Amino acid sequence: MEKKAKTEKKIPAPVLVDRKLDTCELDRAKMSLMNPKVIKEKSNERTIDELAKVMLKHTMEEGIETVWDRFEMQQPQCRYCSDGVSCSRCAMGPCRIIPEHHRERGVCGADADLIVSRNLLDTLVTGAAAHSDHGRDIVETLYKTGTGEAQGYEITDVKKLEKIAAELGVETKGRKKEEIATDVGRQLLYEFGTFKNKVTFADRAPEQTKELWKAAGIVPRSVDREIVEAMHRVHMGVGANYANILLHGLRASLGDGWGGSMMGTEISDVLFGTPTINQSQVNLGVLKEDHVNISLHGHNPMLSEMIVRAADDPDMKDLAKKTGAKGINLVGLCCTGNELLMRKGVPMAGNHFNQELIIATGALEAMVIDYQCIFPSLPRTASCYHTKIISTSEKSKVVGSYYFDFHPENAYDTAKAIVKMAINNFPNRIPERVLIPGKPVDLMAGFSVEAIVEALGGTVKPLIDVIASGDVRGAVGIVGCNNPKVQHDYGHVTLAKELIKNDILCVETGCAAVACGKAGLLMPEAAFLAGPGLKGVCKKLGIPPVLHMGSCVDCSRILVLLAELAKALGVGIDQLPVAGAAPEWYSQKAVSIGSYFVASGVYTVLGVMPKIAGSDNVVKLLTSGLNGVVNASFAVEPDPVAAAELITKYIDGKRKALGI
Amino acid sequence: MEKKAKTEKKIPAPVLVDRKLDTCELDRAKMSLMNPKVIKEKSNERTIDELAKVMLKHTMEEGIETVWDRFEMQQPQCRYCSDGVSCSRCAMGPCRIIPEHHRERGVCGADADLIVSRNLLDTLVTGAAAHSDHGRDIVETLYKTGTGEAQGYEITDVKKLEKIAAELGVETKGRKKEEIATDVGRQLLYEFGTFKNKVTFADRAPEQTKELWKAAGIVPRSVDREIVEAMHRVHMGVGANYANILLHGLRASLGDGWGGSMMGTEISDVLFGTPTINQSQVNLGVLKEDHVNISLHGHNPMLSEMIVRAADDPDMKDLAKKTGAKGINLVGLCCTGNELLMRKGVPMAGNHFNQELIIATGALEAMVIDYQCIFPSLPRTASCYHTKIISTSEKSKVVGSYYFDFHPENAYDTAKAIVKMAINNFPNRIPERVLIPGKPVDLMAGFSVEAIVEALGGTVKPLIDVIASGDVRGAVGIVGCNNPKVQHDYGHVTLAKELIKNDILCVETGCAAVACGKAGLLMPEAAFLAGPGLKGVCKKLGIPPVLHMGSCVDCSRILVLLAELAKALGVGIDQLPVAGAAPEWYSQKAVSIGSYFVASGVYTVLGVMPKIAGSDNVVKLLTSGLNGVVNASFAVEPDPVAAAELITKYIDGKRKALGI
Repeated sequence: MEKKAKTEKKIPAPVLVDRKLDTCELDRAKMSLMNPKVIKEKSNERTIDELAKVMLKHTMEEGIETVWDRFEMQQPQCRYCSDGVSCSRCAMGPCRIIPEHHRERGVCGADADLIVSRNLLDTLVTGAAAHSDHGRDIVETLYKTGTGEAQGYEITDVKKLEKIAAELGVETKGRKKEEIATDVGRQLLYEFGTFKNKVTFADRAPEQTKELWKAAGIVPRSVDREIVEAMHRVHMGVGANYANILLHGLRASLGDGWGGSMMGTEISDVLFGTPTINQSQVNLGVLKEDHVNISLHGHNPMLSEMIVRAADDPDMKDLAKKTGAKGINLVGLCCTGNELLMRKGVPMAGNHFNQELIIATGALEAMVIDYQCIFPSLPRTASCYHTKIISTSEKSKVVGSYYFDFHPENAYDTAKAIVKMAINNFPNRIPERVLIPGKPVDLMAGFSVEAIVEALGGTVKPLIDVIASGDVRGAVGIVGCNNPKVQHDYGHVTLAKELIKNDILCVETGCAAVACGKAGLLMPEAAFLAGPGLKGVCKKLGIPPVLHMGSCVDCSRILVLLAELAKALGVGIDQLPVAGAAPEWYSQKAVSIGSYFVASGVYTVLGVMPKIAGSDNVVKLLTSGLNGVVNASFAVEPDPVAAAELITKYIDGKRKALGI
Repeated sequence: MEKKAKTEKKIPAPVLVDRKLDTCELDRAKMSLMNPKVIKEKSNERTIDELAKVMLKHTMEEGIETVWDRFEMQQPQCRYCSDGVSCSRCAMGPCRIIPEHHRERGVCGADADLIVSRNLLDTLVTGAAAHSDHGRDIVETLYKTGTGEAQGYEITDVKKLEKIAAELGVETKGRKKEEIATDVGRQLLYEFGTFKNKVTFADRAPEQTKELWKAAGIVPRSVDREIVEAMHRVHMGVGANYANILLHGLRASLGDGWGGSMMGTEISDVLFGTPTINQSQVNLGVLKEDHVNISLHGHNPMLSEMIVRAADDPDMKDLAKKTGAKGINLVGLCCTGNELLMRKGVPMAGNHFNQELIIATGALEAMVIDYQCIFPSLPRTASCYHTKIISTSEKSKVVGSYYFDFHPENAYDTAKAIVKMAINNFPNRIPERVLIPGKPVDLMAGFSVEAIVEALGGTVKPLIDVIASGDVRGAVGIVGCNNPKVQHDYGHVTLAKELIKNDILCVETGCAAVACGKAGLLMPEAAFLAGPGLKGVCKKLGIPPVLHMGSCVDCSRILVLLAELAKALGVGIDQLPVAGAAPEWYSQKAVSIGSYFVASGVYTVLGVMPKIAGSDNVVKLLTSGLNGVVNASFAVEPDPVAAAELITKYIDGKRKALGI
């Protein structure tokens, strides 16, 4: 990697992207036609989050459009697109498969199976690319921290760095941590390329699991190569067999889960510290009426970790006081929030569907965004309030946002400039428009694999013992997003409650973890909702029945935990009494996560139907055929109560097969 | 790269993919309802290729479905997909922008600009991925040829290898060509990765062009990285600004044109020889009634070059004779055909839309396919004849084909097994169903940059002189595919004829070159159709007015030629009196080619509208805004006569600016 030429230090300054949205851009009149009864009904139908209900009522009264309104406006949704049988890939099309109108093949000759599988592969690798590009950014930051090019970063978890160095064959003896970081960074960056042809962390999987991958030809060779090859395969006249296409999808997803995502998690731990168990708070009530409120939204902790440090700078605190605020209040949103909550205990304002509502509180000075899952219309929402949307990634310059050209090389300076911009916006707040809808809920977070093992006394054996004894019947990873097709948080919370009732431990990431946090399930006290076995275990260890394991890239922590358990038992991951679930998934990343779960041997139940109904063959392969390949498959069950039944039955089957 | 463990030599054997299609799978009755008048009309409307007309009439009479029939069945095409305003990327959708129904944003908040640009970026990088993954396969073969792992390959153009080695900083002095090849292969493979952060061949562009790229932030860092980052950017909540998304598209396309594609071209030359001017023949008439006919279809010469050698094996010739054939007749199709035509003079059966018609001749024993632009329904077409479809890429196992697990390590053995399979199929031919529709046309091919320079006497100066004098007014690269939205070959041939009439030299690749070949324009005798200036130049040099420069990855040859011309003149590519055109494009690769043409400074006219009409902003940016970035833009003009006028006017403008 060529070093950047040292240039004169510039003070980071924001650039307005495209155009200023300075008066309320929403058609508030249109919205405010709703009568109070309808508003009340809708608030209740749309979410189970009590504070979100208050804000939804408020947005409807104020005529502020939200994701739920746009979802209503988009009804009915196209049935061909919904079923995955619409193809718009080449310029001979667009084509649709409509057998009743004798449209059985696209212009190129592709049938429904091929069209559905190509569309799904594109979606899957979009997700894999998102995670992996995030992982790449983190690994590059490690490399630059090693070489001294990055500003403000340091190697925080040296032990983890050395462990990873050993996996990569990087010498550690008698070397400075920066030297090791440089070599580790280089070795991992090579794994995005073609030549090395190895994704080292995939070696962490149990031998039995790796044998299944080899037999199926789905061992990932590189993070990027599998994604690019997938895009090659969706080109007209390349991939021509739905099963072959979907198997390659599994390979690309493994390159994400055991590659890009795992690098993202592990190297973030090296740079910012491996999470330890901590206490914090969650929901929109974390906003403070008398503070400068800054929300950190997106997925990558690179910048937000620096903002945490900058907000602690005495100069910044003084400046905040000078503007009349009592201090600076940082709050998290989505997975950037989860990263900060896990490592720093930063309070969490909410998950995906809280992102517009937090602006409508009128109490948010700035929303700092990096990338992924950020509604591109946020600056429109903000145009009706004083909130400034501050974008920080070259990949995601949202129209109407203030963009800071952030790089590892100018990280700390940029973080300070952003905090300053937020503080300077405090006087623009209109007190009579402020609505902080209630009080926050306590939660416990920070359950990295290392933290779990430490809580267990140093090994996973106690966990295996309670599983073997039946006190804990099994474990389920509940992950994923929010989706307007599901009542906000209902899928996550209901499924978790049903499972813990059945003595099944839940480990969660992303929006699922935040939903359960808001519902109070992330506190040890929630053990009263668990079955007797799990309740006893939680009480003994002082842990909640639902463990927050991090952001969505941290689904890789779930893989590591499963690998540890399987290796301790001498079995493949597919033999464990575990499952995965994504009750409210919406994103392309969730497709990749679900796929690497299944490819790793984890039965995974989706709460939202993927766009595959147009191909019986694809449905069959994903919901049963994959059992013959990776000993696991998908299921779709929109009702979380029924999903819990499915999962419990599956886990009991696995227990029986293990003879426990 | 880890070497494969040596295993016992296995004789390559085919595997039937998915299921056997052994009786005619087409609904012939449905088709044969057409009356003779309609059949005649349709044959004439669909193509200008006289032999294709005969075959089209035949397929309609026989009830054999072709791409034109499927295009008719797909009418009307979805207007939202056609305009690019349908988004099916995440599971909150699908969404459509329908302003008249108050659907101005998708569920996530994306507007038409964002949806259109994300869809276009996906399409563009699908094309870039296809080219680049092809390039990677070739570079890996070079590397394995260097290390001795590949079977049957050799370093053919040592001079070119040494030239490339010098560009990459690889030592050549006193080293074996295999050692150099190993190092060159390794260095190029690194350019697919993240760490090297350099696409070396992009240095070949003139300084002025590179300065434009730097200023716009579109210097490609890696072949794969830009593609994967593009997929990250199309994820919900990442790319949020159409202009930013499309600029990244230009960067990814440059990584294709000056990276993946150029590697594909250059390293194919190293392995199989840089093309020199040769004579051959083109159209369906190249089939021989008394020979075993094998068509080589797809894009990658790795296998087909071996088949050329295997078909020359005395054992194979004997075997063919034993089955009653006079010999083995290899013919090309699409770009695999172009690769073989350019380097070996293998006769060319046709372009994209000839691929089904050749099967309907009843005279084809085997169609060997690698990847790209291969109708996935070909085995259905073949099921009505004796033709065997033989697939050879793991990425493209077409359902109903016979698949050979081909790798560089078993290349020659596989090629022989395939030729044998074709020969053994000769006795299954049904003589009374054979229809070879006419005689082939002569053509001249092999116009690599090196061959052109040699024809000019060793430098590009004579070409510059005739351009400066006005004898040749400028040059246009006509590239791209066939598309049922355009009468087959009409766009290519008409545009070329109009341009040469205006003393504009045409350089062509892909299906465009084949179309002009079939129309007789690739012979020096076609100079009589050219204006007086160009006619004189053609006569003097003994060259046609339309030069065949190769396959679609060989559009990189056009970049190299333009760079040479610009550097000789001391200007940027954007200042040259040149343009690009894709009159009948359909493929995602064409989107990438068009984009790297424009990003390199070449005004490019498309004959088919991309799916962007739903966003005025995107249309404006692509058709004029880019002039402020890379000094070039796109235009869309379906009428090739009008397109020729546009281009001529543009070229005259450039001449004026240069003062010539």
